[in-house]
Amino acid sequence: MVVMRNYNSLSEADLRTLLGQLETEYARWQARGLKLDMSRGKPAPSQLDLSDGLLEAMTDFHAADGTDCRNYGVLAGLPEMRRLFAELLGLDPELIVAAGNSSLNLMYDVISQLMVFGIGGATPWGKAGKLKFLCPVPGYDRHFRITQDFGFELIPVALRSEGPDMDEVEKIVAADPSVKGIWCVPLYANPSGVCYSGETVRRLGAMKCAAPDFRIFWDNAYGVHHLYEPVPLADIFAACAAGGNPNRAFYFFSTSKITYPGAGVAMLAAGPDDFKEILRRLGSAIISYDKMNQLRTIRFLGDAEGVRRLMKKHAEELRPKFEIVAGTLAEELGGAGIGEWTDPKGGYFVSFDTLPGCAKATVALAAGAGVKMTGAGATWPLGVDPEDRNIRIAPTYPTVSELGTAMKLFTLCVKLAAVRKLLAK
Amino acid sequence: MVVMRNYNSLSEADLRTLLGQLETEYARWQARGLKLDMSRGKPAPSQLDLSDGLLEAMTDFHAADGTDCRNYGVLAGLPEMRRLFAELLGLDPELIVAAGNSSLNLMYDVISQLMVFGIGGATPWGKAGKLKFLCPVPGYDRHFRITQDFGFELIPVALRSEGPDMDEVEKIVAADPSVKGIWCVPLYANPSGVCYSGETVRRLGAMKCAAPDFRIFWDNAYGVHHLYEPVPLADIFAACAAGGNPNRAFYFFSTSKITYPGAGVAMLAAGPDDFKEILRRLGSAIISYDKMNQLRTIRFLGDAEGVRRLMKKHAEELRPKFEIVAGTLAEELGGAGIGEWTDPKGGYFVSFDTLPGCAKATVALAAGAGVKMTGAGATWPLGVDPEDRNIRIAPTYPTVSELGTAMKLFTLCVKLAAVRKLLAK
Repeated sequence: MVVMRNYNSLSEADLRTLLGQLETEYARWQARGLKLDMSRGKPAPSQLDLSDGLLEAMTDFHAADGTDCRNYGVLAGLPEMRRLFAELLGLDPELIVAAGNSSLNLMYDVISQLMVFGIGGATPWGKAGKLKFLCPVPGYDRHFRITQDFGFELIPVALRSEGPDMDEVEKIVAADPSVKGIWCVPLYANPSGVCYSGETVRRLGAMKCAAPDFRIFWDNAYGVHHLYEPVPLADIFAACAAGGNPNRAFYFFSTSKITYPGAGVAMLAAGPDDFKEILRRLGSAIISYDKMNQLRTIRFLGDAEGVRRLMKKHAEELRPKFEIVAGTLAEELGGAGIGEWTDPKGGYFVSFDTLPGCAKATVALAAGAGVKMTGAGATWPLGVDPEDRNIRIAPTYPTVSELGTAMKLFTLCVKLAAVRKLLAK
Repeated sequence: MVVMRNYNSLSEADLRTLLGQLETEYARWQARGLKLDMSRGKPAPSQLDLSDGLLEAMTDFHAADGTDCRNYGVLAGLPEMRRLFAELLGLDPELIVAAGNSSLNLMYDVISQLMVFGIGGATPWGKAGKLKFLCPVPGYDRHFRITQDFGFELIPVALRSEGPDMDEVEKIVAADPSVKGIWCVPLYANPSGVCYSGETVRRLGAMKCAAPDFRIFWDNAYGVHHLYEPVPLADIFAACAAGGNPNRAFYFFSTSKITYPGAGVAMLAAGPDDFKEILRRLGSAIISYDKMNQLRTIRFLGDAEGVRRLMKKHAEELRPKFEIVAGTLAEELGGAGIGEWTDPKGGYFVSFDTLPGCAKATVALAAGAGVKMTGAGATWPLGVDPEDRNIRIAPTYPTVSELGTAMKLFTLCVKLAAVRKLLAK
């Protein structure tokens, strides 16, 4: 690998020469007529093929306790599905709902409930006046959109290498009772891949909150989505209980990126009092979730060990892709001083920071040559990245070959946008 | 059939003699140790067997337009599923969402949305002060429970032979802007089996409402659940449009009692403006519904004609049961003057009215001999039937033989409760 000269130390003349080379190269890419969509974190078809067992005929439709899964009933979900989640994630099966096909929908439902009814006897959020929600950035656009829709002011807090900046979080939640919650993706955060440390989890559970109804929305979407050795995650419920706040966390998970996205089984767990309250209201909202899909899923997955075996196959599919991203970025941008990026050990994304003011231009250039990335700014509340730096790279859906091509183009776009920015100074 | 003497004209002495006979007979029933659950409107296992095709292996997972149904996407549901609903019910496929496994959940979601966000620019219901909802009685307890949970005052209106008492409905909605909606089961209403006439539908669409955001919750749960010749239903959207209220109705349906309860596909349709607004919010709440189950369902059902063929098989299963109910009631109670009942031509229920003050006692007696009925009062808002008369009979789940037994016992309990009441006067 050639050690690259840092772009920031190039003379204007050198930058102009480089610009000409990059623009010629970009024009060649445009002429290729690529058409690739890297905008969303979707598993590749080859990963979905790993769950072909779900397509097999069902020779029996009875749950372990004899329940006919074809008929109404069993609001909290099949006991064996709740047990699998509990075993897999270290949770209490009695405080789990095995629900429908979408954990995002459960998050929306819980926030909607808290808006209308409140929780734990507190004033319903919808009647509590000003509302604020903490959004670790960069983060997941669909999380931010929910709280935006419900009228929250979204407060960005920096996501550091061990999780949200806890000094900042503790200061904000202690001072302001209108801060009602925080979005957390504690393992392989979307998009940075950051994993919360034990100390971060401890502090989240223990911190003093001005709002008694402050809640942690713990979306462990990538809880078993390790690329290498599993990164451990501390027990959020234990941390909350130890801090004297046993009802502080709602825990979400799903099999969407284990089996089929949008056709898996979603999970909600909560502290003991919250669980009763939420389940009672779910009991008004639905008669029962799709037990046939739960039965199909549990029969295919078997047990927690079965899930872990399947996730190793996913990792085999995904590792080469993450390694192409890391490799191409290092090779093309290492030492250039025009970008920083993360090197996740799991999950679905890589976070990339351009020079300030270059993210939108970079994404637009990629689109102009046929590669659709997640919109710049999407990882920030309201879609506005104040420094216009962050780009979410979603390497899972394309094939290895397509991804290699797309990453070459992406790094070219990073360079081109950077040189233009440096020349405009 | 022996013509029965009207109980109301019996002397006290005759009543006492009768009481003794009935109590002896009841004791014999108790000794039999029956254990039957007739409390909910669940299809019988033999009906579920009609959908065995859903258990077969799936050899392909692509929708008609090539969509890989295993992955995220297609918020409004598979086009072919929307077209099937449209064809079956005479709706516009563009104004339909093919959703998850529960139409009740869609009703809850819509009311929840209107509580928090309002509709059509009106004040959100949750900020509009006092809220009221019209509940045709007898009606469906799960409907009433939703609006009860959200804090509505539930206003009972009489369900007559052609639908809700429209003189009463028109008077209430014209006068009171806090009346925000009405629950309607327009075909084979739960539990009476009443079908709304064309004139009722016309008046619902045309009536003047003090609340601009008044909405009809049109739960056509039994829209294709005919026991004999189909009873026609007028087009509620056409009626609303003709009345100048194109966004007045939300239309719900599902395949729960076509294929599997709780594992079918639910549907929401709405007027053009409402549809856009609701779908946009659903787009915050979920990425996509379970397309694999939609695909499985559409492949099994085929088209509207396929649904109608399947419903004829259901009717063959259900007709003998409804005829046992009608026959036993006529034989045991005809002319006795201690009960009135409906004779539905479809749906899942029969409505029975005891003498005033006898419903709870009758249901308790049945339970005391091992037959669990739907709780007396359940068909009224808050579970309180002011005259304590109405009982919902759910004949679908037991076998023909069990139902025959249960109905014999039920009529005995009606008689026993009535005689006790008459003697207590």
